[in-house]
Amino acid sequence: MEKIVNDIKEFIEERDWRQFHTPDCLAKSISIEAGELLECFQWNNNYDKEHVLEEVADVLIYGLQMCIALDVDPETIIRLKMEKNAKKYPVDKAKGVSTKYSELK
Amino acid sequence: MEKIVNDIKEFIEERDWRQFHTPDCLAKSISIEAGELLECFQWNNNYDKEHVLEEVADVLIYGLQMCIALDVDPETIIRLKMEKNAKKYPVDKAKGVSTKYSELK
Amino acid sequence: MEKIVNDIKEFIEERDWRQFHTPDCLAKSISIEAGELLECFQWNNNYDKEHVLEEVADVLIYGLQMCIALDVDPETIIRLKMEKNAKKYPVDKAKGVSTKYSELK
Amino acid sequence: MEKIVNDIKEFIEERDWRQFHTPDCLAKSISIEAGELLECFQWNNNYDKEHVLEEVADVLIYGLQMCIALDVDPETIIRLKMEKNAKKYPVDKAKGVSTKYSELK
Repeated sequence: MEKIVNDIKEFIEERDWRQFHTPDCLAKSISIEAGELLECFQWNNNYDKEHVLEEVADVLIYGLQMCIALDVDPETIIRLKMEKNAKKYPVDKAKGVSTKYSELK
Repeated sequence: MEKIVNDIKEFIEERDWRQFHTPDCLAKSISIEAGELLECFQWNNNYDKEHVLEEVADVLIYGLQMCIALDVDPETIIRLKMEKNAKKYPVDKAKGVSTKYSELK
Repeated sequence: MEKIVNDIKEFIEERDWRQFHTPDCLAKSISIEAGELLECFQWNNNYDKEHVLEEVADVLIYGLQMCIALDVDPETIIRLKMEKNAKKYPVDKAKGVSTKYSELK
Repeated sequence: MEKIVNDIKEFIEERDWRQFHTPDCLAKSISIEAGELLECFQWNNNYDKEHVLEEVADVLIYGLQMCIALDVDPETIIRLKMEKNAKKYPVDKAKGVSTKYSELK
């Protein structure tokens, strides 16, 4: 993941965009791109895969830019969150159900 | 990135959640998590960094789950999108401005 | 509000769109339009008021379409929610602060 | 609609919240609430109607607060947008299809 994060960093620096990449603006950008991704599925499930992938990429890129802006390693925060999720969704309770952790029995 | 994608895959398989991870549901999940991330910045910029990182991690995890569901390599789609973005935002026009590509001069 | 709700109903019926207006699809549509609205403020606060108003109108229209799809009166559900909010945010505690109700002292 | 808009205005003024209701913060709030609404439909269509209505109400309330912040009448902007939509989606072309206007034939 280090290589791609460095490439994104370079892309931003070449354009002198670091100044715009406040956490607040990046959070807005992620929501905006998430909306564009959702639009691929607005009325039905006949999605255009290529279009979907572009929008997913935009979400991932802004997510990684947030990591750059906050100076954290994406893998580290993903692993930390997965450990937390593993506790919220223990295999024996969560297996095969989509129930929210707060309502798991 | 391969390692973390495999760990996410294992997490899902252990819980037998693949059945829920349709692209449509994952697109909704990304928007939902993006909203939770945005809430960290709702009224001001005094954000709780730890909370922000958890929500960013959720966005990234769902983004990677979409790649798993669509059987694509995240780095590949990110690189493809960055090449496209590089054309939409050439350094000489985009440097130091946050203007949308359709309005760049 | 009755008049405008009826006009929206008519607009939908003329186009035979009721079939697409499931609550699930309308929830997606509201998120999509909310993202377009947010884009007006993506990098700074120099928003185009006319554009903002169009996106707000889209959010309101889909919100009212959800009321039509679920056969409820918008004013009634707004009033019910405002009563609930009034209890979560009592004037003496909430005055002049943007703190979330769960953290109000 | 005038009555409900005035009641919302009063609710805000009693709490001295006008200071927080910048268009930027209200746009974020609309996206956040839209995400909460979407969560009612995250993994399936077995939604809790009462919960859905509360989230729709939140979206509508913030939408109306945006109208208050920008000093416009909600009915007026809704009507203007509907006229625009009527041109983008003429009955003879849009009837019975969910195609986006840019791809209508």
